[in-house]
Amino acid sequence: MSGRLAVVGLGPGDARWLTPEADAALGDAEALYGYAPYLDRVPERPTQTRHPSDNREEAARAAAALAEAATGRNVALVSGGDPGVFAMAAAVCEAIERGPPAWRALDVAIIPGVTAMLAVAAQAGAPLGHDFCALSLSDNLKPWDLVERRLDAAAGAGFVLALYNPVSRARPWQLGAAFERLRRHLSPTTPVVFGRAVGRSDARVSVTTLQDADPGAADMATLIIVGSAATRVIARPGRAPLVYTPRSATEAGA
Amino acid sequence: MSGRLAVVGLGPGDARWLTPEADAALGDAEALYGYAPYLDRVPERPTQTRHPSDNREEAARAAAALAEAATGRNVALVSGGDPGVFAMAAAVCEAIERGPPAWRALDVAIIPGVTAMLAVAAQAGAPLGHDFCALSLSDNLKPWDLVERRLDAAAGAGFVLALYNPVSRARPWQLGAAFERLRRHLSPTTPVVFGRAVGRSDARVSVTTLQDADPGAADMATLIIVGSAATRVIARPGRAPLVYTPRSATEAGA
Repeated sequence: MSGRLAVVGLGPGDARWLTPEADAALGDAEALYGYAPYLDRVPERPTQTRHPSDNREEAARAAAALAEAATGRNVALVSGGDPGVFAMAAAVCEAIERGPPAWRALDVAIIPGVTAMLAVAAQAGAPLGHDFCALSLSDNLKPWDLVERRLDAAAGAGFVLALYNPVSRARPWQLGAAFERLRRHLSPTTPVVFGRAVGRSDARVSVTTLQDADPGAADMATLIIVGSAATRVIARPGRAPLVYTPRSATEAGA
Repeated sequence: MSGRLAVVGLGPGDARWLTPEADAALGDAEALYGYAPYLDRVPERPTQTRHPSDNREEAARAAAALAEAATGRNVALVSGGDPGVFAMAAAVCEAIERGPPAWRALDVAIIPGVTAMLAVAAQAGAPLGHDFCALSLSDNLKPWDLVERRLDAAAGAGFVLALYNPVSRARPWQLGAAFERLRRHLSPTTPVVFGRAVGRSDARVSVTTLQDADPGAADMATLIIVGSAATRVIARPGRAPLVYTPRSATEAGA
């Protein structure tokens, strides 16, 4: 009997962004694995075992879920947002490549979800309406020099930037350094969107500029979008402004 | 009485990727607008009017939907994938900025969805597991020089690339030119994923290399992911290979 591992994207925040495919995969599972706060978002079912784990334990969590699937069980590993974007799908692939050959025979399904940048962009308007990059600011898994080189390349070529993992207790200065770096390439009035806990009851989206962007306003639950030279802000009476990047671009506007 | 416009992401393909929020917005609408093949995916309801339009009519479609919302109606404008990624949300913002002041007072909601690159990545493994860029190859709305500059910047800095709008009847050579350009930066063995019609019954995902990538294998319904130097392929007996980009990166691997 062959087991199955579904790596399930819950989307950001509440159930309104959970796809039917993800919901079905959660219902079918005999065992659930995941970072504890994500697992808490999945309703308890008496027939399922639950295996919450800490943050930063991605490799061990992936291996444990694969090992249980290899015993023939139907296992779901939950991930916030989309599992393929700075989340569990890559950790599972790494574990398969390093693990026993039997893991390569398993039925592994990645169930996509709404990733944080799409949810934040939707709240703000359409800041990702033209070419953009998604970049993790965490230097736990890559050197800071490489982060800077990518900030330079993306901003210099006119990509809008979605910044994941902007800050954590162990990484307090990286976001400020990134804003400084981006100021070399972008005008002080470039729109910047802070999206915190989007999809949750305490969600907050704010729009500022690169010159006024305060790294202290971000935490681990924040996703930041930095516009390009083409990104625009529409003021609206009695409503939040709309931030968007037009569909057309010129060399000058890039 | 104030109208409402919801710009609704249907996700790619079938209903398994339609979020509950999107489903509710479609059910609540009094009028539906959209590119005809997308509108065909929404079940007919006798209480709703339907206004299909052609491709390439984004600006007129956005204006028509806003004009109807401004009469006090609840209008939904449907978009494939996520409306914020090379889709209708930016067209709506453009129309609001250019349109009558009353349009700025409207309740406009962007409903996010699963965008094509997430669905294709999920089918292939986790090719977007580290920093990546999303780039439209259409030069209808930007000069080709700018596309090349962005390909250079992204590939040169080690971003994985998701290529939207790779080809159309009016744009037959752009994808081949993009592969040629990328060969300046990337090894011939760099993994390339072609995802065609993902989410539909005729979906097809194939994995090749940059040296073997055939532009003729893509059409308008294809999304292409070009790996970085770090992207890996895991062969699996009796199963499609897994393509993934590890969570950690080094300067050398970039």
